[in-house]
Amino acid sequence: MKRNEIGQQDCPVAQAMASIGDAWSVLIIREAFYGRDRFSEFVRHTGAQKTVVSARLKHLVETGILEREVQEELPLRHRYVLTPKGRGLRDTLLVLGEWGRQWADDDATFAVDLYHQPCGHRLEPVVHCASCGEAVAPGSATPRPGGG
Amino acid sequence: MKRNEIGQQDCPVAQAMASIGDAWSVLIIREAFYGRDRFSEFVRHTGAQKTVVSARLKHLVETGILEREVQEELPLRHRYVLTPKGRGLRDTLLVLGEWGRQWADDDATFAVDLYHQPCGHRLEPVVHCASCGEAVAPGSATPRPGGG
Repeated sequence: MKRNEIGQQDCPVAQAMASIGDAWSVLIIREAFYGRDRFSEFVRHTGAQKTVVSARLKHLVETGILEREVQEELPLRHRYVLTPKGRGLRDTLLVLGEWGRQWADDDATFAVDLYHQPCGHRLEPVVHCASCGEAVAPGSATPRPGGG
Repeated sequence: MKRNEIGQQDCPVAQAMASIGDAWSVLIIREAFYGRDRFSEFVRHTGAQKTVVSARLKHLVETGILEREVQEELPLRHRYVLTPKGRGLRDTLLVLGEWGRQWADDDATFAVDLYHQPCGHRLEPVVHCASCGEAVAPGSATPRPGGG
């Protein structure tokens, strides 16, 4: 394979990671899901340097995950909100966070727990197959050559 | 929040991203799921520079996602295989890849498609709640302060 840009590879995982960026981008997206939409809020709640937050916000707007809107004209202030594409990352963050939780230290506690509102239990996400509805067991996802 | 290391934050998403690393790490993990286990294979199939692959493999071994085994003594050769922790990332890659696919260009094709072996359809992963079994609808994951 050519040493190409990740985003040019014919793999949806590679393209997804190119759109998202890095770990700090993921934390910005996390905060956007919690309803935070201001530059200063992203700085405060991700723990990233201002220059990092600034660069990641720009990238996330360019890749269509966040939309930048004018919140106030004077002084000029922007807010950053998830687009439909950005909101589509919810499941990825749920599953990624569950993995982080499962493999954390035994005595780890977390600032936030997620609950499944309809049933009231802590939300433990499980991946099912959309076609047959069954949970996807280990070893049951089989790769085949695609059209690419 | 202190400008701390991502991995020290009391958030499972942050800890997960610290364990994984970056986009190249994700592609190495993808290849490991396809059964590739040699340094040269990771270089060929991720499109990353050798120095990048070397650093990411080291990181993934340190964070317990891959295990390094001696494959041959003379000449010394290693193989890198997913640990149980690493195999736990399967659902994250499935859901991330599905998002990448959904938001790719209309005419995009991919090198690999994943099928759900028991039912034979292309695997479109959907996140369900382990407690009630229902699919997790938009807006139904509710944050509450955790024990952290």
